[in-house]
Amino acid sequence: MRKVFKKLENVDVAFQKLVNAVPPRPPKPLEVSLHEALGYYLAEDVYSSINIPPFPRSSVDGYAVNSRSTWGASEDEPVKLKVKGKVKVGEEAKVEVGEGEAVEVDTGSMIPPGADAVVPVEYVKEVEDSILVYRAVTPGENVLWPATDVYYGELIARSGERITSRTIAALSSIGKGKVNVWKLKVAVISTGNELVEPGNPLPPGKVYDVNTFSLSARLREEGFEPIVIGVVPDDYEKLKEAILKGLEVADVVITSGSTSAGPEDMVYRVVGELGEIIVHGLAFKPGKPVMLGRIGEKPVFGLAGHPDSAYFNLEKIVIPYLKMCVKARRTTERKIKAVAASAFTPARGRRTHIPVKLLEGDRWYAFSSALSDHAMVKYSRADGYVTIPETRRAPVEVGEEVEVTLFQEPDYDYAFIGDVDVFVDNALKTFEKNVKVLPLGSFAGSLASEKNLKAVWLSPSAKGEELEVELVIVGEEGKRLAFPHPATFLYRGYREFLKKRGLREAEARKKYLHVGAYPSPQAVSYAVKRGFADFGITTLTSALKEGLSYEPLMMIKLRLGWHPSQKELAEYILSEYERVRVR
Amino acid sequence: MRKVFKKLENVDVAFQKLVNAVPPRPPKPLEVSLHEALGYYLAEDVYSSINIPPFPRSSVDGYAVNSRSTWGASEDEPVKLKVKGKVKVGEEAKVEVGEGEAVEVDTGSMIPPGADAVVPVEYVKEVEDSILVYRAVTPGENVLWPATDVYYGELIARSGERITSRTIAALSSIGKGKVNVWKLKVAVISTGNELVEPGNPLPPGKVYDVNTFSLSARLREEGFEPIVIGVVPDDYEKLKEAILKGLEVADVVITSGSTSAGPEDMVYRVVGELGEIIVHGLAFKPGKPVMLGRIGEKPVFGLAGHPDSAYFNLEKIVIPYLKMCVKARRTTERKIKAVAASAFTPARGRRTHIPVKLLEGDRWYAFSSALSDHAMVKYSRADGYVTIPETRRAPVEVGEEVEVTLFQEPDYDYAFIGDVDVFVDNALKTFEKNVKVLPLGSFAGSLASEKNLKAVWLSPSAKGEELEVELVIVGEEGKRLAFPHPATFLYRGYREFLKKRGLREAEARKKYLHVGAYPSPQAVSYAVKRGFADFGITTLTSALKEGLSYEPLMMIKLRLGWHPSQKELAEYILSEYERVRVR
Repeated sequence: MRKVFKKLENVDVAFQKLVNAVPPRPPKPLEVSLHEALGYYLAEDVYSSINIPPFPRSSVDGYAVNSRSTWGASEDEPVKLKVKGKVKVGEEAKVEVGEGEAVEVDTGSMIPPGADAVVPVEYVKEVEDSILVYRAVTPGENVLWPATDVYYGELIARSGERITSRTIAALSSIGKGKVNVWKLKVAVISTGNELVEPGNPLPPGKVYDVNTFSLSARLREEGFEPIVIGVVPDDYEKLKEAILKGLEVADVVITSGSTSAGPEDMVYRVVGELGEIIVHGLAFKPGKPVMLGRIGEKPVFGLAGHPDSAYFNLEKIVIPYLKMCVKARRTTERKIKAVAASAFTPARGRRTHIPVKLLEGDRWYAFSSALSDHAMVKYSRADGYVTIPETRRAPVEVGEEVEVTLFQEPDYDYAFIGDVDVFVDNALKTFEKNVKVLPLGSFAGSLASEKNLKAVWLSPSAKGEELEVELVIVGEEGKRLAFPHPATFLYRGYREFLKKRGLREAEARKKYLHVGAYPSPQAVSYAVKRGFADFGITTLTSALKEGLSYEPLMMIKLRLGWHPSQKELAEYILSEYERVRVR
Repeated sequence: MRKVFKKLENVDVAFQKLVNAVPPRPPKPLEVSLHEALGYYLAEDVYSSINIPPFPRSSVDGYAVNSRSTWGASEDEPVKLKVKGKVKVGEEAKVEVGEGEAVEVDTGSMIPPGADAVVPVEYVKEVEDSILVYRAVTPGENVLWPATDVYYGELIARSGERITSRTIAALSSIGKGKVNVWKLKVAVISTGNELVEPGNPLPPGKVYDVNTFSLSARLREEGFEPIVIGVVPDDYEKLKEAILKGLEVADVVITSGSTSAGPEDMVYRVVGELGEIIVHGLAFKPGKPVMLGRIGEKPVFGLAGHPDSAYFNLEKIVIPYLKMCVKARRTTERKIKAVAASAFTPARGRRTHIPVKLLEGDRWYAFSSALSDHAMVKYSRADGYVTIPETRRAPVEVGEEVEVTLFQEPDYDYAFIGDVDVFVDNALKTFEKNVKVLPLGSFAGSLASEKNLKAVWLSPSAKGEELEVELVIVGEEGKRLAFPHPATFLYRGYREFLKKRGLREAEARKKYLHVGAYPSPQAVSYAVKRGFADFGITTLTSALKEGLSYEPLMMIKLRLGWHPSQKELAEYILSEYERVRVR
């Protein structure tokens, strides 16, 4: 019998149970050279054993003097001082400077005894073994005093600090050549018979392994050491072997896949046999089938298999735990407020994370980054995500304020939003500058137009230039109809299609079994061309591009509008429209 | 004769001259495995050669059905369907599902022909070779349609994109196992006789080499490949050799130091001999003595020698150029508005960068991050920097709005600002949580108190608990007086000291030649203890801590106040005050 998740554990409660059962602890510190320390977590408190500067230094090229000697000097009445020698950079200054005397120095030279200021070379004329000084200096002028930057005994960096280039500047400044860091090792295992390694052909029924790559890359970004164990099939003994290997080489083990409550739930069984299951099933979306366990003193995280689920499980559960292990004290999450520009529906009773893209208007507007769930590639181009608490039942409605946790800076120069067709696609591919693309259909395009967001928008109801697009039927009528996603303007073509055939929607769904919700005209044409669908509704331009035979369906009117800053992109798209249409 | 910079070139003009003389170009693309691609710049436009999902997939564990078969099913009146077999994950689905039939599937299984929906296992009861279905499903329910995420031919990533974990998720999703990246190689050379490698003892007159470490770490952070050539002395032949080696192994050469217009200006001479000087001397601070040059088709950047100067030169001139080489299209700089809480003085006619730390109040407040210039370690702990344009002559005044370019997120839990003494130092070292520390003296502490900033503040004029601190003279009267920095409360002790000796300030400066401006009582005590100064003005607690003999000077009253959120830190500091005082 299959096991069903009877109860989903609250995320915070689950996390606390894990922390209680397997208290986070750092690995053994590792002493590395400063060149290898970047990005890791410091495993020691570092105090300075020197003053910086260690001695008074000149901050300019010039002549070290007792400042009193220069008082009264001016352009008209220079003061003459006898040059007693030179202190080169890196030399110990031994010659004493008396009144009426000067010693040549470069930037960084030690100030000789008796001197308390430096006259910059610009204000000096050299005359045999003397100088004429054309400006007075005050005590301390152009001198860097000892300990101005750091004093002996000062705390420079604390354990748990993530080492940046600026930390490295500080550590090298005080002469710290080696440093103790924590490199937390994390074994990464992907499970599933369906997984194929990228770079190989994809047989029917299979998908590419994403988690091995995305999880280990994300761990690296956060300063941890992934150890890739690789893909194992859904086989009890092989999974057990992989987990045992992970425990041997790493401090923490992460698996993904094989955690749903089906009969193939291998991770649960292996960890149950070798250790203890702490939590199974989280009130979390994406990624509910999560197992938190322990084998010996090491934690084992069984993440959900779908790439977006595994990514969010890692982000919100594993990484916070790993950061506790290395005593990371700084938050690196950045949040901003935005206006919901799409409705966001929470999964009932689960803490739900919705990836979004942000467009700029009078405020930031957050659009759902994909038309459907489980769209890892679309998600991977999101600017961040909205978190909806488990206690909320009602969807977040358009216009509500939301908080977005950022993946990256949302700033952009150009953006496109709304419906897409070949001419848009072509333009976006060849336009020289980066464009943030939100192919979210008519409603999104229309909203962007109404709010005058910084973008080019294409939608039947946008303000802007009128464009005509012809819709057609491609392929041979059969059971599998490529169905345009309701969010695209093609939906009107779908209704026209039904009308022509005298069908209601429910009847059409009976007649055409695979009514595939393809996200764009190109996707429909490709599907028909490559035999994923028998026939489909698409645009004439994409049918022609793919060389498909077609039957005319209807003309449709779209409008292309733009924010003033987007003129260049808009004109580029229009020229593509003309080019493709005339053909 | 020394050469003086007659004219400092405007930064933007200089940059354009460089770009014209040495047009930025990418290195040869390098094909790497996806595991090695993180952080580099993509050297190709990547299009998908598959649909994702490639076939209709189940998004749950359950039974694939023709949805019509389930219509009318309910808790009370289940529908019975015959189970025709199972499609495992990773298998091609071959068995056809007719009306009244079902095929078992797991999450990720291919949907078999004839099925258009999946009934989740939760709504099914297994009865011999059949199932009872307790809920109807609609067409498409729990099915992921082909191409929902990615369609064949879709643009996935563009050249010039920096590869993040999310890029890697997208690339692995479409089966891209190898990818072309640009690894731009940058030779890093530090010059100067005074430089000692960290980890070695520091002889008099020498300082530690910082630039080799900080510049190469910063280049790595931005996705470039530093090649460390190391430290070379100020010797024409040796520098020439190092630069030639750099040109051989790298695409770009960076030196630091030896660029000031003194006689030792080796970089200028070597590049002048081997190639062409494009710009020498920039209207920039910190880091005016910059040389931009060219040898063959490769750019050579001669940066200023002081670590803070070299760091800012790299940040504002080299990195923007390198990003153009790899066609990086996204800005990663983040800017926020803040209120100036210190006065910021621009260098006349030069674009000036002032590192700041930010404290939170009704808005963000920007404080100068150090009491003096050239304080790399203090700078390295800044939250970001303020840029003052070259056209501005007047200082930025307290209360003016400024724009801060961030090094890191400025958020924090605890902060301390104002005067420091041993008890503060001790507390900050042992307090369990991270504290943002701004040891900027009385004025800063008083301002933070007045504006009720989120911090603990210590200053004679803050609101809060009264604390008494005793000032003393330590050491034996001599020429070198350790002078407290005017920003610390000790300055009042300095005036008292002068009064007792019947001296005016100018006279004191004559009498005590090295009047060193030490930043804290600890720094003064250390300076005297270790012989950097003969005597000094400090606090009794720090004198006792260092075991110095002392002569009483005066009592001074400070006040420790805090924002409500900072109570825990404030109490911790107060307990340290009590502990040290009773001693």
